[in-house]
This record gives sequence, structure tokens and C-alpha cells, in this order.
Amino acid sequence: MTRKMRLIAYMKTGPTALHSGGWRHPEATLHDIFDPVRYEQIAQVLEGAKFDGAFFADLFGVADTYQGLEMFIRSGGQNSYLDPMTVIPLMARVTSRLGLGATISTSFHNAFHIARSLASLDMLSGGRIAWNVVTSTNDLEAANAGMEGMLPHGERYDRADEVLEACFALWNTWDPDPFVFDKERGRFGDPEKVNYANYEGKWIKTRGPLPTPRSPQGRPVVMQAGSSDRGREFAARWAELIFTPPYDRATMQAFSDDMRQRMAAAGRDPRSCKILPAVTPILGETESIAQERADYLDSLQHQEYDLAYASLSAGADLSKTKTAEELAKARGNQGTRGGTDRLIQIAEKSGVTLAEAAAKKSRGKALVGTPASVADALQDLFESEACDGFVIMPTTFPTSHEQFCRSVVPELQRRGVFRTEYSAATLRDNLFD
Amino acid sequence: MTRKMRLIAYMKTGPTALHSGGWRHPEATLHDIFDPVRYEQIAQVLEGAKFDGAFFADLFGVADTYQGLEMFIRSGGQNSYLDPMTVIPLMARVTSRLGLGATISTSFHNAFHIARSLASLDMLSGGRIAWNVVTSTNDLEAANAGMEGMLPHGERYDRADEVLEACFALWNTWDPDPFVFDKERGRFGDPEKVNYANYEGKWIKTRGPLPTPRSPQGRPVVMQAGSSDRGREFAARWAELIFTPPYDRATMQAFSDDMRQRMAAAGRDPRSCKILPAVTPILGETESIAQERADYLDSLQHQEYDLAYASLSAGADLSKTKTAEELAKARGNQGTRGGTDRLIQIAEKSGVTLAEAAAKKSRGKALVGTPASVADALQDLFESEACDGFVIMPTTFPTSHEQFCRSVVPELQRRGVFRTEYSAATLRDNLFD
Repeated sequence: MTRKMRLIAYMKTGPTALHSGGWRHPEATLHDIFDPVRYEQIAQVLEGAKFDGAFFADLFGVADTYQGLEMFIRSGGQNSYLDPMTVIPLMARVTSRLGLGATISTSFHNAFHIARSLASLDMLSGGRIAWNVVTSTNDLEAANAGMEGMLPHGERYDRADEVLEACFALWNTWDPDPFVFDKERGRFGDPEKVNYANYEGKWIKTRGPLPTPRSPQGRPVVMQAGSSDRGREFAARWAELIFTPPYDRATMQAFSDDMRQRMAAAGRDPRSCKILPAVTPILGETESIAQERADYLDSLQHQEYDLAYASLSAGADLSKTKTAEELAKARGNQGTRGGTDRLIQIAEKSGVTLAEAAAKKSRGKALVGTPASVADALQDLFESEACDGFVIMPTTFPTSHEQFCRSVVPELQRRGVFRTEYSAATLRDNLFD
Repeated sequence: MTRKMRLIAYMKTGPTALHSGGWRHPEATLHDIFDPVRYEQIAQVLEGAKFDGAFFADLFGVADTYQGLEMFIRSGGQNSYLDPMTVIPLMARVTSRLGLGATISTSFHNAFHIARSLASLDMLSGGRIAWNVVTSTNDLEAANAGMEGMLPHGERYDRADEVLEACFALWNTWDPDPFVFDKERGRFGDPEKVNYANYEGKWIKTRGPLPTPRSPQGRPVVMQAGSSDRGREFAARWAELIFTPPYDRATMQAFSDDMRQRMAAAGRDPRSCKILPAVTPILGETESIAQERADYLDSLQHQEYDLAYASLSAGADLSKTKTAEELAKARGNQGTRGGTDRLIQIAEKSGVTLAEAAAKKSRGKALVGTPASVADALQDLFESEACDGFVIMPTTFPTSHEQFCRSVVPELQRRGVFRTEYSAATLRDNLFD
């Protein structure tokens, strides 16, 4: 069977994704951020294009790492204005095949609640739910949850391992076909098919059983995005879908080789996990229109907001931390590890401050071109087996996703590298068909 | 303006409500428990009848207080098979005026998560969300959440006070009209309108701001059902809607008088809270059909399951605790306080065991009659001002609610005691119109 490309759409319950100027584009819709129709329509567009799924990034708070709340309220708008778990049921209801993922932190909720709500959504959606597992990296989120601060990086993942172990134990508390529904004899279900989980870890304990029976997928598809050594170890154990930054080809290949080795070492078939780098397509009818559009979008970017965003990722205010040492001192246990390591590398290689490196890092990430040339680039990277497909990042919502679905997807389909029809009912079965 | 009766439908994400035989009725639907259509259809039926709202009872686990899991799986089916928070968005989407309430425990989730998810739903529903605040009473739920056991009764409510204070602080972190949406100048929102909550209690801390702006209702309508002294004190401070057991008229009147006094003492207008006792109508075209139907439903009841349910409420296995002293020893911090006090009273008054008292207590609660005689009884109790309306408990789902909506509601409307049209857009505005 021909190997098929996987496509996942990146979403936020806000006006845009990572591009800080995308919401200023004339076609960006803003007044409908709290309107169910916004989320339902994009779900239908993505399902029409046969995307594997859509997933919501999230933050458990409003970022204020860089000089307070101002930048994220005034200039950005990249907040998660709604709990993604409240819009996913709506998107599931107007689709029948599209996978739907929520980012849920292992740091702030009890495992029983996570397991129960995801199992409920997997039931209601007919088996189309993914869980993007994050460990959370910022004290601002911890403070919202009433915690003193984040655990050290390694311990965050140790705790996350336990949350996953506990959730898996809970998802296994019901055997298949537990219901009898015998009204005559008064037998509703079979107690032999329901068991305790009795999970006891160092951080996490839960007894079970879950009130929700085994869902169509048994458990949600596990997504993960960690790029540090410990994050990769975690992904090698659990992830069925890995989301990476927009690496260059050599880095992408090295990452995938490393992950496949780690999975084999962990006793897993390396083909049991799809590796998808982020790409930000900027499309035009001609190369020059696409390039002008990219330049136009660049002109809408807000440099200070970008620095605020980079500060959130790094876990410290980058306007106040000029060197790696100052950053290490200021961030404590905060920030993503892999992403910040790359930032420091850029700064040291180019001999610039971390703030300058962040500005450098946020430029030139887009994949600019015509539908055909963008399809060329995606097909080329996909066929090299450096990755299994892509997470498509929008600049302007909903236009970016719509353009990609209408122009690049048909091109990929014509070339036979992307599906023209779903082959199965559940997200996992489509992802691994 | 004429005083109007309030009606709320009791719901579970399971086959029935409290009647243990209701699911065995020929018209009870069971195979659709995990189907969104089940919840959407009843929402439309209730909105068609102009109900104020529907709310979901919940338990954070599967009850095993009485001899393990067997009774609740084999004979009952009164579990909450889905997280109610996952079906409420679906019900909101197919209605425009019906209020929708979720039971969420103050014991197991961080306040920030509760505040965020309820604010998100209030946004998506256009201001129609209620929060049925429970403190949770069973070690089985605590064990699912990874806690050693429940706090003592009084402390549970002290902690619940803090959860509410924290949520209210979070819901106030955004001033009205925070968005500018000025694409030209790159101004998304006004940072002056977003503030920290900085809540610090003994148990609960949260910093904020919430990522979700002020929702249409500002905060969800607060429901509460505590009947102990401490529970009433809590309700007097917070509740806008109190749900009580099916008291006789004198007890109902005494409860309402007490609550109105407590609210006045707490500095609240007693009219700022609606008091609704539970009623379980069993309807028939004639009195004799209704009575035969009630007898038929009684014949479907499962006595041992009822004892298991009473054990869950009491917080100890009632087959092993014959006296109030034995129960007090076995339950520890578990169980509802008000309900168990009444159980002990019945046992002592009648000189029977607690198990026998529980069987006695679970009988004869239904309101049996024709649409006209049931409307008489409801109108009579309502006009005495002993209560403000009713929580309608179904025996058989969806038949019970459908019958009530089609036959009793028009009768109440003809008499001018129940609305024929919604007067407002939000739940709170309709509830207090």
C-alpha cells in the first residue's frame, strides 16, 4: 500500500496561531471567536479536505512573562479565549471522520478527570479524539492552578508518565460489551466486566473504575511535542503522533531517526507513531503574489509581541536576560527546554542577544509559494521519510486553512500522496491506515 | 407582575434518574446513552415547553459503598456514564433559551479550571449556564481523585466557600467590552480592562486573569442542594437556585422560611434565590391509569439496588450499620448530612433498622395523577409560596419528561402560572423575570 501523507490543522480558541500579525489581515475574522459557527465551519472545511484531524494548542492562563499582561492583550490576541474542551463537542457533532485533539496539561488536573472527559468525548464523537499531552512550563500557569511553581523539568515528565499510566489504567477498567440491557430480568450490565484501576504512583493515585465504559478508540490518540532529551524519551514511550517545530530537512531527518531508534529501544514499532513537523504555508496564485503576501504579512507582525511570545516559551523576560546564564537564573524551572536550547544556539552562533536571536528565529519560517510549489516541498520532505506529514499552521484564520484545503490538498491528491477518502471511522484507524 | 412557576428538568448521563426501575419500562431508551441525539432531543423538548432549564446530577465515580460495584452495574444503571460537561455544549447548540446546568464538585478540580470551563460554556451558549455546586461526600470519589478521603463536613463547606470566592474573583478579571479589534493600528484588546484575581485562601489560591472574558451572564447561575445547617448557610450566601428533596408541605414551608431568613441575615434579597423541591410526576389519562402505572413502576424497582443507593447517600453500607451509632462510626466524614439525619429520624420514629427506613423513605415519593390533578398539586404548593417551582424528576427517560411537557405544562400555562414564552435571552434573566 502506498504510504500516505498525514495532515493535522493547528487551531486556537483565539484569532490566529503563532503569526503575530495574522489577525490584522483583512480576511481575518475576529467577532466570531465566541461563536460556535466559527469552529463548526472550519471542522467541516477540514473534513471536506480529508484532513486527519485538527488540534487546539492551549495555555492555562494569559501570558505575562514579558512585562505583564499588556502585550498579550493589546497586540497579540494569541490567547486561548475558550477552553478547547468546550468547542470540540461542537466540531465533532458536525463532522463524522475528522480527528479532534485537545491540549491538556498533566500538571493541573487529576488523572481521573482527564481520563473521564476524554473517554466521554471519544464516545460522543465515535472514536475521533486525540490528547495533546503537555507538561506545562510556566509559573504563571502554576499560579493559576494554586501551585507554588512548576516542578523541575525532569520531574515534570516523571509525573506526566504517572498521569498517563493512571489514565491508561482507568481506560482499561471496562471490558468490551459490558451492557446487557435486559429489562425483563432487570440486568443492566455485567459487573464481571468492570474492574478497579488501583493505580498508585509517587505523585498520582486513582482507584476507578471510570464511570465511562471503553470508548470506540479504547483511549484517545496520544500527541506530544517535547523536543528535549527527556521529552523525546516520554514521546518514545507514549506518543502516536509527534508534533515538531519547523526543522530544516537535516534536523528533521535526525529527529525522526532518533525518535525511531528510541521507540525501537522502548519495544515499540517505530511505525506506530507519526512524526509531523509544523509548516506555515503562505500561498499565492503565482510565486510573486505569494511572496508579496508573505511580505505583507511580515509587515503586520509586532516585534515586541514576538519577544513576549518568545519570553513565554523561554520562561523568562528576554528583554532582561541577555545571556544564557542570565536566562538560566531567571527562568528557574520554567520554559520549554528544547526550544530554548535552540534559541541559545542561535544567539551564540550569531553573537547576538537572546532577544535578537528570538527575532531572528521568528522570521522566515513560512513555506511561501504557489499550490504546486508548496505541494512540491511537502511531497519532497514526506517522500524522503524525514517525516510522515505536517501540522499546518495558519497565519490568518480561517483563510489560511481554507486556501490550503482548496488548492494544496487537491494538488497532493492528484499526485497520489494524500487520501481522497477516509478509509475508517476512528482517528487512529485513519491515521494508521 | 404575576409570580410565575419555575421548572427545571433533572437529568443524568445515564438511563434514568433516581427511580431504580425506570430503565426497565418498555419506553425507556438505553442504546442511545452515548448518542448525542439523546441529549439534543430532550433539550429541544424542554425548550419547546419553556422550561427554565435542565441540569445534570453527577458522581465522580461508580458507587460501591454497598457491597462493591455489583449493584450499580448489574441492577441500577444510575451511573453518570458521560462527563456532563461534554454533552452540555451539544444541548446548548440546538436550543437558544433553555438553561443548562452541570454538577461540578468543589473538592476535586482547581478553581481556575472550573471558572474557565463554565465561562467558556456561558460564552458559547449565550449566557445559559448554571453550576450545581456540590462538595462531594464519598471516599470513593476522593480515591478516584487521588485523595486520602473527604474533609470533615464543615471543612468541606469552608473549602467550597473558597472555591466560590476564587471563581467569582476570576470571573471578575475582565471588565466589559475589552476588545478593540483595530487591525489598522494593531490594537486587539485593552489591557486596562484585564486584571489579576490574586485570590489567596486557606485551601485555594489562584492568580488569574482568566483567559476567557466576561461571559453574557458574568458568572453561571449558582445552584445548590445542601440541607444540613452548614449546607443551608452556604446556600444562603451563594445559591440563586436551591434544589431540595420532595418535602411535605409543612417541611417545605419551614425550609423556605428558614432559607429566606438566612438570606436576609446574609444581606441578600430573599427573592434573589428560587427554591425548587424535587417532584416525580407519574401521569395517566385517568387517575386509575396513573395509579396502575405507578404500581407498575413500583414493581420494576429493585430493593437491593435502592439500599445500595441509600448507602451511597449515607456514606456507609446500610446492610452492616443497623443503628445511628454504627452508621456514625462506619461513615467517618462521608455521606450527605441532611439526608442521613432524616433517615435516622425515620428509623427511630418507626423503630426499624436504617435499611428498613431507607426502603420506607424510597417509597411513595411520586406525584401520581392526571395532568390536571398533578397541575393542581403543583399550583397549590407554588401559590402557597412554600416554593418557587419544581425540579422535575423523570422515572423513565425520555418518556417522563415528554409526558410532563405535553400534558402538565399546557395545563399550567392555561392557568397562567407558567410562562408561554421566554422573556429574556439568559438563564438568569428568565429565572428572575
